[in-house]
Amino acid sequence: MSKPLTVPVELGPASYDVLIGQGALEAASDRLKALCPRGRAIVVADEAALAPHRARLEAVLAGAGLSLHVIALSGGESIKSWQSLEALTGKLLDLNMERGEALIAFGGGTVGDLAGFAAAIMKRGCPFVQMPTTLLAQVDSSVGGKTGINTAHGKNLVGAFHQPALVIADSAFLATLPRRELAAGYAEIVKAGLIADAALFERLEAVTGDPLALDTLTPLIADAVAFKARIVAEDEREGSVRALLNLGHTFGHAFEADAAKGALIHGEAVACGIVLALKYSACKGLCDAADARRASAVLEKAGLPARIADLPGGPYEATSLTARMGSDKKNAGAGLTLILARGIGKAFIAKGEAPADVEAFLAGEI
Amino acid sequence: MSKPLTVPVELGPASYDVLIGQGALEAASDRLKALCPRGRAIVVADEAALAPHRARLEAVLAGAGLSLHVIALSGGESIKSWQSLEALTGKLLDLNMERGEALIAFGGGTVGDLAGFAAAIMKRGCPFVQMPTTLLAQVDSSVGGKTGINTAHGKNLVGAFHQPALVIADSAFLATLPRRELAAGYAEIVKAGLIADAALFERLEAVTGDPLALDTLTPLIADAVAFKARIVAEDEREGSVRALLNLGHTFGHAFEADAAKGALIHGEAVACGIVLALKYSACKGLCDAADARRASAVLEKAGLPARIADLPGGPYEATSLTARMGSDKKNAGAGLTLILARGIGKAFIAKGEAPADVEAFLAGEI
Repeated sequence: MSKPLTVPVELGPASYDVLIGQGALEAASDRLKALCPRGRAIVVADEAALAPHRARLEAVLAGAGLSLHVIALSGGESIKSWQSLEALTGKLLDLNMERGEALIAFGGGTVGDLAGFAAAIMKRGCPFVQMPTTLLAQVDSSVGGKTGINTAHGKNLVGAFHQPALVIADSAFLATLPRRELAAGYAEIVKAGLIADAALFERLEAVTGDPLALDTLTPLIADAVAFKARIVAEDEREGSVRALLNLGHTFGHAFEADAAKGALIHGEAVACGIVLALKYSACKGLCDAADARRASAVLEKAGLPARIADLPGGPYEATSLTARMGSDKKNAGAGLTLILARGIGKAFIAKGEAPADVEAFLAGEI
Repeated sequence: MSKPLTVPVELGPASYDVLIGQGALEAASDRLKALCPRGRAIVVADEAALAPHRARLEAVLAGAGLSLHVIALSGGESIKSWQSLEALTGKLLDLNMERGEALIAFGGGTVGDLAGFAAAIMKRGCPFVQMPTTLLAQVDSSVGGKTGINTAHGKNLVGAFHQPALVIADSAFLATLPRRELAAGYAEIVKAGLIADAALFERLEAVTGDPLALDTLTPLIADAVAFKARIVAEDEREGSVRALLNLGHTFGHAFEADAAKGALIHGEAVACGIVLALKYSACKGLCDAADARRASAVLEKAGLPARIADLPGGPYEATSLTARMGSDKKNAGAGLTLILARGIGKAFIAKGEAPADVEAFLAGEI
């Protein structure tokens, strides 16, 4: 078994490590013991995600002298609700969970977002461990401390910045993931390269064979996590550069909002959104049209949709998409705020983009 | 009009000022303007507390170019619920409140606790301003960033540490307060002296005339806030010395839990609890019995109950009180954790006190 990779997230007293690759779970044994001082590991788990890994998790915990206490969840994005939050904290209070005890999230981003928020507000803050089981969660949502729930007004409008104490991104968790979900996570790796890591993007271009093979993926996951760690360390609470991580997301959220229910997944919307952000940048004379083509090529190699016509859940319509973009929570004041690029690895925050320009551009892409 | 006093709370980038006394509200005008960049002041207010001060608040806000937008609450401790939290955040989302906009709490501790928690989780954290209108809130709950709600499991078990950006403890807010409520807040000033500020305690002993007269109170409020600011600066998240602020509270919470509904108020329970903590300390040979008598004298001068027999809401019973003390959330592991004292201004954290000792002591006091 190859040694897991460790990527530190430097946040002063809130610093933590992300353990990545084969055997990451076993390598975390001593740390889990320290984070669970009462001899039990309280794990909030996506039932379906946990099932194939439960025996291994129990064995690792037993080796650390810990019993496993599972709080099972199921239901995808719908679990990020007030109702689930109240129910989960109630269960933790039933267990008389104490401030020094860690809450462990086992599953994809929705489980991590809900459990992380519960940990943030339980007795005004308990430690939190992420065991992300989707590629999207491993490279994106498990790192950086964003937690939250959705409301009738929109996604993630209520939540907390609550950094995990440890992230365990074990490769084996990805082995049972459908290929479409793997590809969706890959879009976030591509995004990292395009924002500010041209060398990473070139490594993605240089991949021969299947980019979603686990051996190929593991070092790329570490690269993407290291990239995100740098951004988060610089701007923990999204006051400035952290907003760059939204490259492709303002377009992407609009597609998600307008898609036929259940037809489109986040990473696909982001993949197409990234290409649109580069194409729009090229239209504005900010970068070369070839940059957008390079991004498309890397995304399509992983089977991701790079054109609106290829995006599931359509048809889409420019006026509606533009209106959706205007209600994104990152938009303050007049005009649209978009993440655009001056080239590969040169993303920047563009404020005050005219909705009419964006709508005309989208109409030409549909 | 005398100049308001300013007490800084030093917490690095989260530092803030507490403005105290006559004219504190007017003195805050420029800061309120900076905290409300969209030209409106969103005020979560206890309706009854706001009514006598609404015209003045509107005038001060108008002077800063701000309109007043009130979200009215009523209901005392019952507003610290999941239901109120969800309803309040829903109203803030209806207003499309943005991350840079402050939420202002106008009222006693319950309004501040609920509104502060809502500010902590709105879009993962908005600025927060406290306008405490009870003496208890001015000297205690408005400073230090503890926010939260109650659940079926107990008080304040769900919440956040979220420091305010500004606290406006205006004397005029206290002018309409019932004398019993003023006295309850006074107990927290006495507590501050007993914990670690013998000089403050001696100033309280030296007060001639009515200790609850506003002119007498104002400098004492500033002293108590400065004391609390020192403790919070040293230990923002209650990992160590901040627990000293619970002097009298473990006893006090037990009385509150056992009292006839509505008969006992928090400050009265704390007043009696403080004296019991000192008497228990004397029983254990930690301090002199005269120290407990000095504490009683200062509390009784403000009309506060210093003996269990004088406490509203009884009769109380030692076995039940002791059991209540064992379920306090600050108690981790075996035995009871109490704040005891080695003399006036010399409180310390005592862990592992035998419940049997505490019960025998209480039985002797009833």
